Amino acid sequence: MKKLIDGVDSVLSQSLTGFAAAHRDLVRVSLDPKYVVRAGGPATGKVALVSGGGSGHEPLHAGFVGPGMLHAACPGEVFTSPTPDQMLAAAEAVDGGAGILFIVKNYAGDVMNFEMAAEMMAGPCATVMTNDDVAVEDSTYTQGRRGVAGTVVVEKIVGAAAEAGAGLADCKALGDRVNAATGSMGVALSSCTVPAAGQPTFTLADNEMEMGVGIHGEPGRRRVPLATADAIAAEMVGAICDATAPRRGDAVLLFVNGMGGTPLMELYLMYEAAARHCADRGLVIARSLVGNHCTSLEMAGCSITVTRMDDGMLAHWDAPVRTAALRWGV
Amino acid sequence: MKKLIDGVDSVLSQSLTGFAAAHRDLVRVSLDPKYVVRAGGPATGKVALVSGGGSGHEPLHAGFVGPGMLHAACPGEVFTSPTPDQMLAAAEAVDGGAGILFIVKNYAGDVMNFEMAAEMMAGPCATVMTNDDVAVEDSTYTQGRRGVAGTVVVEKIVGAAAEAGAGLADCKALGDRVNAATGSMGVALSSCTVPAAGQPTFTLADNEMEMGVGIHGEPGRRRVPLATADAIAAEMVGAICDATAPRRGDAVLLFVNGMGGTPLMELYLMYEAAARHCADRGLVIARSLVGNHCTSLEMAGCSITVTRMDDGMLAHWDAPVRTAALRWGV
Repeated sequence: MKKLIDGVDSVLSQSLTGFAAAHRDLVRVSLDPKYVVRAGGPATGKVALVSGGGSGHEPLHAGFVGPGMLHAACPGEVFTSPTPDQMLAAAEAVDGGAGILFIVKNYAGDVMNFEMAAEMMAGPCATVMTNDDVAVEDSTYTQGRRGVAGTVVVEKIVGAAAEAGAGLADCKALGDRVNAATGSMGVALSSCTVPAAGQPTFTLADNEMEMGVGIHGEPGRRRVPLATADAIAAEMVGAICDATAPRRGDAVLLFVNGMGGTPLMELYLMYEAAARHCADRGLVIARSLVGNHCTSLEMAGCSITVTRMDDGMLAHWDAPVRTAALRWGV
Repeated sequence: MKKLIDGVDSVLSQSLTGFAAAHRDLVRVSLDPKYVVRAGGPATGKVALVSGGGSGHEPLHAGFVGPGMLHAACPGEVFTSPTPDQMLAAAEAVDGGAGILFIVKNYAGDVMNFEMAAEMMAGPCATVMTNDDVAVEDSTYTQGRRGVAGTVVVEKIVGAAAEAGAGLADCKALGDRVNAATGSMGVALSSCTVPAAGQPTFTLADNEMEMGVGIHGEPGRRRVPLATADAIAAEMVGAICDATAPRRGDAVLLFVNGMGGTPLMELYLMYEAAARHCADRGLVIARSLVGNHCTSLEMAGCSITVTRMDDGMLAHWDAPVRTAALRWGV
C-alpha cells in the first residue's frame, strides 16, 4: 500500500485537522466526537442540514459544509458509517431552532445510525435518504438502490432552500423530490485501497472494468472488457434515463464525477460523450458539474449523474454557495 | 493502458470540447489552432495574460481562464509544448490594447515556442517565466529550475493586478516577484501514462517514491523507500525554505497540490504536516490552497508550494476570481 500517511490509525484525525486549518474561514472541526460545522455557528431560525457517512469520498461531505449548503458533516472512518453520537453532537452544534434535516446516502450502516440519532433528537428533525444509483437494486451494503454522487445535488439544492428560509417539511419534500429526479451510475477502471485494509478492495484484470460499481468498490452490474468512453457514456446515460424517465425537452443538470484517480482530461472527455447522449435523447443540459466530488479514495473511474431540474431547483442550484469544494456567487 | 477515451489521437480535442460545453458561461474554445479564451471577449484597455503548456496538468491552464486570472490558455498535446501559432492566435484573440503578458513554465520546449510567439507579436508583450521547483537545478527538459505548481500562484496574483488595471511592465515585475518568492517540490508514489505512449512513463517499486519528481514524471532528487507523510513534508518544506530563505514571521501562502491520483484525504493530511513544519520555522500561514491544481495525469503524489506574501500579493490573492477551477468573491 502506497499512501501519504503516518499510520493507518491516525489518517482521519490528521486529515480533518488539516482540513480545519486550511479552511478556518469556513469550518470548525471537532475531533471527539468527529464532526465538521460552519465557522459561523448555528443558523438561527433556519433549518440545519446535517449529512455524513464513511470517509474516503472527499470532498463529500465535509467539503460541502458552508453557507448555502450543509451546516454539518459527520465523517466515519474510511468506508465506515459514523456513529449516532457523532450525528447527535453535530446536530446539536448547528441547531438553529427550526429543525434538523439529515441527508443520508442509502447504505445500511448509515441508515441505521442516522435513524438512531433521529430517535435521540429532542427537537424536530426529518431525513432525506438518497438512492440515486440506478446500477443495481439491492447490493452488498444496501436494501434498494445505493445513494451516491447525486447526494451532492440534493445537498446543494436543499441547502439553498434552507438558506432562503424554507421550513423543515418543505426542505424534506424538496430533498425527496430532487432525489427522485436524479439518477447516477458509475464505472471503475481500478480498485481503491482502504488504509486499514492495506490491500486493494477488489482486483480487475488489465483489460477489465466494473460497470455500475458502488462508491466503495462494491460490485455493479457486470465486469466486462474496457470499452470506449463513448460506449461507457451511452450505457450509463441509457441506464439513468431508463430509471428516471425524463421527457424530451426536460432541462437537466449533467454531472460527471471523478472517483478520485482519473485525470480531469478524461472527465471532460466523458462529459462531452455524456452530453451528446443526453442531447440525442432530447434533454436540454441547463447546468453542468465536472470534477471529483464524490470519490472512492484513489479509484480510477467516474460516475454520471443526471437530475431533471424545474425552475425552482435551477434557482436553488444557482444560489450562492461558499464551501471548500463548491463556491460561487459569494 | 486503462483510460476513459475513444482513441489516443482525439483525447485533447474531445476533452476541450467537453470543457467548452461544461463551462460555456466562462470560456470559448478554438480547436484549430487550439486555445481557450474568456467568454466575454478581450479585456479592453487591460493587460491580457496568456499561458499554456502541454496538456495533462489540468486544471492548469485552461481551468484558470476567466475574470481575475488568465485571459487565454494554449494547450499542447499531452506533455508537449503548444506551438507558436497557437500562442499567437490566442494572444490576438484576447488583446485588449494594453499588451500581452505570457506566463511560461520553464521547460525548454515551452520557453522556445513562447519566445517565437513573442517575436511574432505586432504589439507590446512581455514574459514571466516561472521556475519554482527547488528540487533540481537543470533537468531532463530544462536549463535551470522547472516551473511547476507555483505557476498557479503567479497566474492568480498577476491576474488580479491586470484586472485592477496594472500596466504591462508592472504585471511583468509583479509576476517575477511572485515567482522569486515561491518555491515548490513534488513527490511521486506512482507513474502516469501518456495516452499516446500507452505505457507508464517510469516505474517505481512497491516501496519506492521519487522525491523531487517533475510534473511529467521526470526524475527528481532521488528514488528512496516510501517515507511517512510527516518525513516527506519535512523534507519538502526544508528544501523550499533552503531555496527561498523566508524569515521568521513572514506571511506565506501554503499550497498542497495533488498530482492527480492521490485522494483528497491524503492531501489534507499532507497539508497538516506541511503547516506544522512551516510553523516550526516561524512562518505565518496567511492563506492556504489544497487540491489538484497542477497535475500529472493520474500520477499519485503531491507537491508543496510556499510563497512569501506581502500585503499587495495578499490583496491580489483575495481579489475575486471566476474560473472553472478557482472561484471566489463573485
